[in-house]
Amino acid sequence: MKRVLSTLFLCISSVSYAKTTAPENVIMIVADGMGPAYTSAYRYFHDDPDTRAVEQTVFDRHLVGMSSTYPARVSGYVTDSAAGATALATGTKTYNGAIGVDVDKKPLESVLVWAKKQGKKTGVVVTSRINHATPASYLSHNESRRNYDEIADSYVDNKVNGQFKADLMLGGGWKHFIRDDRHLVNEFKQAGFHYLDSYDQLSDLPKNQPVLGLFANGGLPWALDDSNKHRLSAMAKAATGQLENKNGYFMLIEASQVDWGGHSNDIAAAMAEMDDLAKTLEFLESYVAKNPNTLVVLTADHSTGGFTIGANGEYAWRPDVLHTMIMSPETIAEKLSEKDINKAFAKKLFNFALTDVELAQLQRDKANAEAEVKSYEAAKAAGKAEDLSKPKEVVWVLATSVKHLLDKRTNTGWTSDGHTGIDVPVYAFGQQSELFNGLQDNTDIAKKIFTLLGKN
Amino acid sequence: MKRVLSTLFLCISSVSYAKTTAPENVIMIVADGMGPAYTSAYRYFHDDPDTRAVEQTVFDRHLVGMSSTYPARVSGYVTDSAAGATALATGTKTYNGAIGVDVDKKPLESVLVWAKKQGKKTGVVVTSRINHATPASYLSHNESRRNYDEIADSYVDNKVNGQFKADLMLGGGWKHFIRDDRHLVNEFKQAGFHYLDSYDQLSDLPKNQPVLGLFANGGLPWALDDSNKHRLSAMAKAATGQLENKNGYFMLIEASQVDWGGHSNDIAAAMAEMDDLAKTLEFLESYVAKNPNTLVVLTADHSTGGFTIGANGEYAWRPDVLHTMIMSPETIAEKLSEKDINKAFAKKLFNFALTDVELAQLQRDKANAEAEVKSYEAAKAAGKAEDLSKPKEVVWVLATSVKHLLDKRTNTGWTSDGHTGIDVPVYAFGQQSELFNGLQDNTDIAKKIFTLLGKN
Repeated sequence: MKRVLSTLFLCISSVSYAKTTAPENVIMIVADGMGPAYTSAYRYFHDDPDTRAVEQTVFDRHLVGMSSTYPARVSGYVTDSAAGATALATGTKTYNGAIGVDVDKKPLESVLVWAKKQGKKTGVVVTSRINHATPASYLSHNESRRNYDEIADSYVDNKVNGQFKADLMLGGGWKHFIRDDRHLVNEFKQAGFHYLDSYDQLSDLPKNQPVLGLFANGGLPWALDDSNKHRLSAMAKAATGQLENKNGYFMLIEASQVDWGGHSNDIAAAMAEMDDLAKTLEFLESYVAKNPNTLVVLTADHSTGGFTIGANGEYAWRPDVLHTMIMSPETIAEKLSEKDINKAFAKKLFNFALTDVELAQLQRDKANAEAEVKSYEAAKAAGKAEDLSKPKEVVWVLATSVKHLLDKRTNTGWTSDGHTGIDVPVYAFGQQSELFNGLQDNTDIAKKIFTLLGKN
Repeated sequence: MKRVLSTLFLCISSVSYAKTTAPENVIMIVADGMGPAYTSAYRYFHDDPDTRAVEQTVFDRHLVGMSSTYPARVSGYVTDSAAGATALATGTKTYNGAIGVDVDKKPLESVLVWAKKQGKKTGVVVTSRINHATPASYLSHNESRRNYDEIADSYVDNKVNGQFKADLMLGGGWKHFIRDDRHLVNEFKQAGFHYLDSYDQLSDLPKNQPVLGLFANGGLPWALDDSNKHRLSAMAKAATGQLENKNGYFMLIEASQVDWGGHSNDIAAAMAEMDDLAKTLEFLESYVAKNPNTLVVLTADHSTGGFTIGANGEYAWRPDVLHTMIMSPETIAEKLSEKDINKAFAKKLFNFALTDVELAQLQRDKANAEAEVKSYEAAKAAGKAEDLSKPKEVVWVLATSVKHLLDKRTNTGWTSDGHTGIDVPVYAFGQQSELFNGLQDNTDIAKKIFTLLGKN
């Protein structure tokens, strides 16, 4: 008997109560576009080269598996963010472009809406517009992600049991929520929402009141350019405090702009977005330590850009210069377009010294772009521009030049300005996190969350 | 009491005996160069497009985690196969190029040698030369992977307790084992080894005798070109039968040529090597079902080629034509170089019909390459070739052309002819496989195997 009981004790201690009951709070994080190259790269970006060992990241501590991302067969093997988010939100594969509807354009219930029906509070925290593909797939139904205004309208018009679907929304989107034809922000206010439009108001949210926070016209600025380079973690922190209640909550957090770094083949912007996401995850680590009835799941909807750590036959990746950067390549390009490029000016913008070759390349690219614009304008003035294609804008050319400079410095590779079909990593911690171990499909993630929230 | 016992029963049944004792047999599979894009791609290569769902692969069933691959700090963040294999074999990071030695060129004990010391049988089964970087890191110590003959010699000269390190070696390598200065095959025979040099002899290995099987001068032919397109699985099957004994065994299996497909940016060759690996894993699935005291671990040493599933802004990957191919792009190129290229001839080689555009491109590339060779030869005959660089061989140009054709057909991307630094997937099944869950470093894999084999 003694042996039986001691075995039993071992058993109970290893299969604790917390592991077998459903979490009260579920925090789903979608890092848009974050294929496995991004989390691997972040380890080397984050590494202190002066120590002997490579430092582990918060991602490394919580990897539990991977996820396949392919959309419904009609769209082939490579998903877009709408079909990807719809799969993660509803458990059903659909065509690329679909928001919360199936291949027949029938509405699908999301885990967020189901959670709301169970009496939980709900929230979305994103760095894109709050009506962008990923949050929209949790909150709306539309045959096309491009119907931004319709989707924004649905946030007010389509309720669950007479209530708004989300109790908290933080992100960007003024241009869709304050329009000539409809002032949705006022409608939210009239319905009792507290509205804020700057990050500093995040620390002072009224308790027991729903919240709408919009901080930009479209998506938020790049982390590298934003007044708070860790604005996702700041928003996530405020959101947890706001959503806590006795019935628990479901929150979607989207690190939206990892994807945009990938689309524009911008390694500096992508790593800064990853850093904001890492800070968010580190905050949630400490949050779950204090609130063990919480589950955190992080995955990506797909990978973007065909990003590779190393390229061109060289066995190296050198992220060191990315660390010191203080503005995005796009912003550097804007500033470079406004003044003559010299070594001191470039150093001020990049925050590291360019080589003579790098400097000369930027000067050459700018001069060529300006010459093309000038010659086009001259042809236009002479009425001879009809057969000419419009030249690329100088700022665009300079941004590309800056990104190429960084790709060479770091030895970064890209194969696309779109998405790729590689499986993505899955991270989980907190209550029932072991449910996400191993390889799963993106639809399985929603199905597991539905199960945890009591839907069979 | 009834409740206590029923809980106890549940506990014991979920933590079964098999899970807590060390495996007798350990099979370590290194799929050289197989980053996560390869296993994801294999799912779509393997998929039957006529069914509604995408079929799961044997890899999907056994994913448990991922592994970081970076070498010792002196070599940066991107490993070569020697440092990668040394980490997997010995648990110690080293410089790129090192075979079983540390950064100070001191020898490191491998899990294979440790297993041998514990009285287990040992084997290596590879599709490269058996003295290539990966098997060599388990069997030898050398400051450079390029010292192929020295490494081959060490297989005879360096013994463990008077015994050869491996009881079984299957792969390629005649040119290193049958040399003018030393006939190692004869030395193996004199030491009691059974020698074979063709696949058909694999079914008839003598019991209780060590075995050396060499089937090619260097590496084996591409799977696509080999007489047995599943030669790795055939060798692995024969090896398990041969190594079984009451003390158990350690076997290294290397799918060596996934890496070579990556290096030469050859998606057709890479997928055929993956198919041979999948068949090997499927065989081992059934083997472990019958021999549950066996652990199988599969990972990669790194990813190769910067391979991406989709490229060029297009959200698609179309592997369908790769299925029907019956020879490698290199072999197709050789045959194309020998005769005039027409539609029927090309169809015979590719085993699918080329478009007019594809055919014209091949013809153009061949004509240009031939013209360059002809003009170089003429200059040489006239004594005027000194300042000219030697033109690319026609076969090389045609092979590149064939691979580009397939990249366009499939929409495959590449960023390098070398390695990249992305984390690689880890698969495990059988006894104690759960030890490999989550994110681990490549050195952790060796450390875990050492622990399972009783080394503290």
